Amino acid sequence: MLALAATGSTTADEGMWLFNDLPAKTLQTRYGFTPTAEWADHLMKASVRFNSGGSASFVSSTGLVLTNHHVGADTLQKISTPDHNYYQNGFYAKALADEIPAPDLELNQLISIQDVTQRVQNAVSSDMAPSAAALARRAIMAKIENESLESTGLRSDVVTLYGGAKYHLYRYKKYTDVRLVWAPEAAIAFFGGDADNFEYPRYDLDACIFRVYEDGKPAKTAHFLKWSDHGVNQDELVLVSGNPGRTNRIFTLAALKHQRDARLPYVLNFIRRREILLQQFGLESPERERRAHEELFGFQNSRKALTGMLQGLQDPRFMGHKEQAERDLLKQIAGDPKLRALASAWDRIAKLQQRRKELLGQGVSLNTQLYQMAETLVRMAAEDKKPSPEQLREFRASNRQSLLQQLFSPAPIYKDLEQAKMADLIGFMMEQRGGDDPWVLKVLDGKSPADRAAELIAATQLHQVDYRRKLADGGADAVQACKDPLIRLAALMDPESRRLRKIQEEIQEEERQAYAKVAEAVFATQGTSTYPDATFTLRLAFGTVRGYHEDGQPVAPWTTFAGAFRHESVHAAREPWQLPQRWHDRKSQLDLDTQMDFVCTADIIGGNSGSPVVNRNLELVGLIFDGNIQSLTADYYYSEKQARAVAVSSAAIRAALRTLYDAQRIADELGR
Amino acid sequence: MLALAATGSTTADEGMWLFNDLPAKTLQTRYGFTPTAEWADHLMKASVRFNSGGSASFVSSTGLVLTNHHVGADTLQKISTPDHNYYQNGFYAKALADEIPAPDLELNQLISIQDVTQRVQNAVSSDMAPSAAALARRAIMAKIENESLESTGLRSDVVTLYGGAKYHLYRYKKYTDVRLVWAPEAAIAFFGGDADNFEYPRYDLDACIFRVYEDGKPAKTAHFLKWSDHGVNQDELVLVSGNPGRTNRIFTLAALKHQRDARLPYVLNFIRRREILLQQFGLESPERERRAHEELFGFQNSRKALTGMLQGLQDPRFMGHKEQAERDLLKQIAGDPKLRALASAWDRIAKLQQRRKELLGQGVSLNTQLYQMAETLVRMAAEDKKPSPEQLREFRASNRQSLLQQLFSPAPIYKDLEQAKMADLIGFMMEQRGGDDPWVLKVLDGKSPADRAAELIAATQLHQVDYRRKLADGGADAVQACKDPLIRLAALMDPESRRLRKIQEEIQEEERQAYAKVAEAVFATQGTSTYPDATFTLRLAFGTVRGYHEDGQPVAPWTTFAGAFRHESVHAAREPWQLPQRWHDRKSQLDLDTQMDFVCTADIIGGNSGSPVVNRNLELVGLIFDGNIQSLTADYYYSEKQARAVAVSSAAIRAALRTLYDAQRIADELGR
Repeated sequence: MLALAATGSTTADEGMWLFNDLPAKTLQTRYGFTPTAEWADHLMKASVRFNSGGSASFVSSTGLVLTNHHVGADTLQKISTPDHNYYQNGFYAKALADEIPAPDLELNQLISIQDVTQRVQNAVSSDMAPSAAALARRAIMAKIENESLESTGLRSDVVTLYGGAKYHLYRYKKYTDVRLVWAPEAAIAFFGGDADNFEYPRYDLDACIFRVYEDGKPAKTAHFLKWSDHGVNQDELVLVSGNPGRTNRIFTLAALKHQRDARLPYVLNFIRRREILLQQFGLESPERERRAHEELFGFQNSRKALTGMLQGLQDPRFMGHKEQAERDLLKQIAGDPKLRALASAWDRIAKLQQRRKELLGQGVSLNTQLYQMAETLVRMAAEDKKPSPEQLREFRASNRQSLLQQLFSPAPIYKDLEQAKMADLIGFMMEQRGGDDPWVLKVLDGKSPADRAAELIAATQLHQVDYRRKLADGGADAVQACKDPLIRLAALMDPESRRLRKIQEEIQEEERQAYAKVAEAVFATQGTSTYPDATFTLRLAFGTVRGYHEDGQPVAPWTTFAGAFRHESVHAAREPWQLPQRWHDRKSQLDLDTQMDFVCTADIIGGNSGSPVVNRNLELVGLIFDGNIQSLTADYYYSEKQARAVAVSSAAIRAALRTLYDAQRIADELGR
Repeated sequence: MLALAATGSTTADEGMWLFNDLPAKTLQTRYGFTPTAEWADHLMKASVRFNSGGSASFVSSTGLVLTNHHVGADTLQKISTPDHNYYQNGFYAKALADEIPAPDLELNQLISIQDVTQRVQNAVSSDMAPSAAALARRAIMAKIENESLESTGLRSDVVTLYGGAKYHLYRYKKYTDVRLVWAPEAAIAFFGGDADNFEYPRYDLDACIFRVYEDGKPAKTAHFLKWSDHGVNQDELVLVSGNPGRTNRIFTLAALKHQRDARLPYVLNFIRRREILLQQFGLESPERERRAHEELFGFQNSRKALTGMLQGLQDPRFMGHKEQAERDLLKQIAGDPKLRALASAWDRIAKLQQRRKELLGQGVSLNTQLYQMAETLVRMAAEDKKPSPEQLREFRASNRQSLLQQLFSPAPIYKDLEQAKMADLIGFMMEQRGGDDPWVLKVLDGKSPADRAAELIAATQLHQVDYRRKLADGGADAVQACKDPLIRLAALMDPESRRLRKIQEEIQEEERQAYAKVAEAVFATQGTSTYPDATFTLRLAFGTVRGYHEDGQPVAPWTTFAGAFRHESVHAAREPWQLPQRWHDRKSQLDLDTQMDFVCTADIIGGNSGSPVVNRNLELVGLIFDGNIQSLTADYYYSEKQARAVAVSSAAIRAALRTLYDAQRIADELGR
């Protein structure tokens, strides 16, 4: 009944494949299609990663980048003001000079992948204690990255694959001058709002367009996708190139139970808490609502996604299948003297879940923008004095530029919102660690969470970019002399925060070692032709355009503009089912049969938002923006029975640009 | 800085006083007022308790009952239909015949109070184990109540006071034919909505009017309040007669810490979860929104109240004072050989908090209407076979009529809403007890929480009153033979549910014994002239009409109609700051200087909603509907620095009835 994916046993259109290990045989067998090396290289280089969390693609030789409205939302929010709400009302740059710089975007274009497994493994011997092994692994990874950065000038990241069985070096070209070109109104980008999120049929134009610049001019992007205006056909092969964030398909039963019984309930409680907090914050005034809006949307989206994930894990039928599969695998390796020793990995993972559970909610790092900046400044000053192998990973030389771009972002910071979150986070820490915990008492400094947050946020100067820059430039001496209350608090909490970080890294190291064995068992029994769990790096997924059945009824594979108008009237045009005025004004000029959104069987997950959907000729036919509700368990398994990826049709985007948004300049550039 | 109330040390206008032990001396000293026995008897009998949770008063000789819109909301919701939303749009019965019967209201009028402490104490000897003591206490209480019911025909409840140091028998006249006469629109009853809730200044007409009937005719109510149209004066003495639900001012430091670190965080997580669930349920359609609305309001209200309560406990300054007071008291009793032995009570209470913590979230009784009915039917069948002393308290003979009124209520039950809640509650139980828990597996029956809930709710027939009545009449045989899936599930879970109930009652019994000692220590060191913690029974509070300072600014003691219009325009008439149309249409006919809401220093808490505020001449001057945000810690301590009770002015109610609601018939009856 359920297609159960563990690494190694893939079925149907399953898989998030490495670009240096594409499923050539499957594609050939199922679809008579063999991607050439040139084909793969072109698609890889036409794909783009947003550091704010999302995927995209180059869609012109002049630097145009297509992604989702909800991926661009972070920037739309940051460039908006009380008078110009680009998030809500959309934006279009009539001329090149009108394109608005994003304050802190970094876009990554993958240039090459290199297997460095042997070098990493050689640096870590099997008799090391977990803490020593973690340190050694961190050191060799930093070394490889720094060497690569120095020799190529490219952003260089060593990526851990198959839970720790393989290590690949990814090199990226970075774009940091990124400007907004076009975004539609939130009302059509997110038509149906929270109610329709993860539902299908959908009628969203969840798209926006940026442009990358080099030396103040539009970048010349040799690798870009052609643009199809023809829509997709039933059962057509489509391919998705994007950066799925994280899957956990390798998880053992014990790890899944930890997710089900401890981690997901914990995270969901926090999300609901934050959701209510942001709603309450916004009640006061439209301006406060605007400030909190994008973050609120993010939490609503996560809540709905994680609820779906948890519901999957709470289904005894799914867990029963998973249990059976694990039992079978363990039986197989028990019967093989060469593999028998691997079985200990499952016990080890089970034990580590208990330690993970104990860590839940123990964190003392307050997750607000200003506090995080304070912590970064405090730590950077300390880490910069250490030899490279001992540095915390985010402070390695090869990551410094990206780190500073975030730290010195000129994006607005709203002190009223920061204060509300800070008060709630101190209260939350108090709930989690108990009101008598010594570290909680340090944070409180004798005041209530609300009073303490008010005092901290009122006095800090960290909201000023220059102040942050001066502290960063001044290094350890400047930080030590600094009287800013958030800097002082972050410094005070640093020992406890580092202690917890160390425990976390030890657990991760032990899990890496254990999962490397699990992967070994899977490779040995089911073959090596498989894909690793997602790691927010570039992957290829594939599938066909296909509807499905829900409650016995067929669901068609695509929707049209006409359907959007029908969907609006079914809901009596109540919020959030109100099309923007321009859609009504120009309805008669639209070809109402134009495909709007469509579904396909490709295997995607969060992070894939904004991924281009291409046909075998590398023409862009769609733009991934969602999965349906049945796909929310994709973290743990893939099924093509009902689970679908949801995309905006490229035909709809160009038609809307031309007919509704008077964006001829850009519509003409697309695909050229 | 903080006025710390423990029983025994009252300050200022503190106290929720027993009607058989009024603070005569304080009233005389502070206000030169001595309530006579007739005065107290009249006010007691003019006061009314709503079993749905709230207070009220008789305001005419013809059975008119005044309470809050939000107390009447439960009934407004139950009598509403998709076509007539009385909750949202209000209601007025033009003629007596138009008054709408409430489906399941029971109103209680307190007739007498009798001290039965000695009889209860005699039945419980100090060498009994907690479980035996709990049973013995339950038995004697049921015996006293049944005897009283038989001899007087009145509802008879033994109430535990001072945490277990005293027991009083309360006798009530019951009214069960209660009809709705008038309610304003939710927009003005709850003007400012969730945003303004617990805030001040306020501009709410949170009032509605019912009438009690006997033998199909308006009841003759000899004891009723006269009506004042003159408003209140600065510093005027006012008295509040109502049913505060629960306070915990006797709590020891360990018990307060349990609230702070375990219980309140747990409850708030659940409330936020339910709030999101109900919001999501309502997104789909206006009708679903209507169905979920009143419950959503209730959860929002609780969330805001408990958040305020928790914030008080998270203030180290408050806890520091509490700790100091406890230390002082313990020192005093340690120095007195006669009292020394009482100190063990504090340790016992501290130990019991750990057991309380372990019980949090362990419950297996699914709190939806239909499941609760199933459980009641299953248990009633079993309990009715037992001798009276062994019966669970809610099944005692003296409570049967009230129980059946709820069980056979014809109020609508919405299966879609029941299903959504059931699915969530099963998921919640799974999170709390873990997915491998045997009782969780019984509930799931091999399906996911959502699938299981869908199957249970689709098949049950318990939504039909006749079906429930037949099962109740059929007793144990009928229940045993019944195939209804909710009945079967409730029967299946009953052993575990009873096991937990037993543990709970043992803890309560041990706490009762311990707190009786704490009370003894307080009486011995601070005198007996004090008030017990609130128990949702009739109490008298007093205070003066007085403003306060907030953030250095004075807050005036009352608002006017003019202020309501200003408040609307300050918020640009956005939801929820939109006055009903009739307010605008007839604005010119209103005396805009009429007092609308006012604050006073009386000591109130949840349950006091709907309490009459009277002057010393027993004229109704106001109607309690809220406390300000600074009063939310009243559960644990009283302070008159900023904490205020908030009331609707009686002048505003009658003016609105006459000028805006064309309700001359009722306006003329008030106070006569």
